[in-house]
Amino acid sequence: MKIYETATAPNPRRVRMFLAEKGLLDQVEFVQIDIAKGENLTPEFVAMNPMKKVPVAVLDDGTALAETMAICRYVEESHPNTPALLGDSAKEKALIEQWLRWIDFYLMTPVGMCFQHTSGYFKDRMNCFPDYGQDCYGAAEKFFAFLNEQLADKPYLLGDKFTAADINAFCTVSFARVVKLRIDDDQPHLQAWFDRINERPSAKV
Amino acid sequence: MKIYETATAPNPRRVRMFLAEKGLLDQVEFVQIDIAKGENLTPEFVAMNPMKKVPVAVLDDGTALAETMAICRYVEESHPNTPALLGDSAKEKALIEQWLRWIDFYLMTPVGMCFQHTSGYFKDRMNCFPDYGQDCYGAAEKFFAFLNEQLADKPYLLGDKFTAADINAFCTVSFARVVKLRIDDDQPHLQAWFDRINERPSAKV
Ligand SMILES: N[C@@H](CCC(=O)N[C@@H](CS)C(=O)NCC(=O)O)C(=O)O
Ligand SMILES: N[C@@H](CCC(=O)N[C@@H](CS)C(=O)NCC(=O)O)C(=O)O
Repeated sequence: MKIYETATAPNPRRVRMFLAEKGLLDQVEFVQIDIAKGENLTPEFVAMNPMKKVPVAVLDDGTALAETMAICRYVEESHPNTPALLGDSAKEKALIEQWLRWIDFYLMTPVGMCFQHTSGYFKDRMNCFPDYGQDCYGAAEKFFAFLNEQLADKPYLLGDKFTAADINAFCTVSFARVVKLRIDDDQPHLQAWFDRINERPSAKV
Repeated sequence: MKIYETATAPNPRRVRMFLAEKGLLDQVEFVQIDIAKGENLTPEFVAMNPMKKVPVAVLDDGTALAETMAICRYVEESHPNTPALLGDSAKEKALIEQWLRWIDFYLMTPVGMCFQHTSGYFKDRMNCFPDYGQDCYGAAEKFFAFLNEQLADKPYLLGDKFTAADINAFCTVSFARVVKLRIDDDQPHLQAWFDRINERPSAKV
């Protein structure tokens, strides 16, 4: 498998961390795409992912597969003997998916929209509405408080088990620094969880 | 299983249609929540789903499960003998997940944001940025054109097989009428696909 990605971007980081936790990182060839320069907007890239985003995996049979969690799903389903990160039972799989979606819609999207609409980082390819971006900051801030509450009595988001939900929340909380959103002094549970994940070797890849 | 939902809203419709295709609709008890009146904002509802959205399923053991596709995942994983709508092989599961995410991020989100920010439907609970909402219309319009291209040479989004990707795209294309986005006369493949799905009994539930 080959993965087209951007080492500094938050979405590709999820996939690298997922692969590292599965012990599969060295089985993948990574190709760097400079999204600031628009290398994801070329006809060659768009042919792989019409949505023009990284990461994109190219499977051994040549199939292009976009979207972080679709790539992680493929890895999980084709390597059932490595630790399950997307759940074992029907209920666990569903609860993890609930969390993954909460993180995507109610944390990653607001942080990303705040960044894109207030910084103008991608102003060559989108219209920016800074007031909307600023409003998104408030939504992301609320989700930090929610995470802190949820982590008051358990080490990981799903309980005792480390899952992809921790990976995605961790990558997004880290990324939130670009909009100056940081874990607050009065969020000790979120901070303890962050430090716990940050110590894992997968957090360094 | 009990599902708290709003019969007229697009997200719950995905889950009803999914259950109907699995032949499981009559095994679920539906409870109506009036989101216009804010019945999803009460402490009782928020205890089930802190994100304050419908649908929410309550499993037989009392576990609350939010998010459309988490509910569908639970149903799929616990009823493997009904037709698979989320895929069979690792590759098929991953490609369906890619499509589900494309539909959520690049069609449902823009349509929803256009609706919410331009109509003020939820102005009791959010700040509205009409210019941003209007910009989202353009993104949704582009996705309609993309769907039309993709459907030029196949009956369903994944090829010959009807999947949850068709359900979610269908529910969202239907919903787009609220922002006056309709299938264009020069999008015959999208129209033929829409008519094909619309004939299924599940489209009526
Ligand atoms: N929903 C996508 C999001 C991917 C995404 O937004 N990637 C960003 C980098 S973190 C990107 O490619 N941005 C470039 C652009 O928007 O032009 C996924 O889960 O893979
Ligand atoms: N990501 C959620 C979206 C759910 C959602 O946005 N539901 C809408 C109805 S279609 C809702 O509950 N809106 C009420 C509100 O925003 O107050 C899912 O997939 O279940």
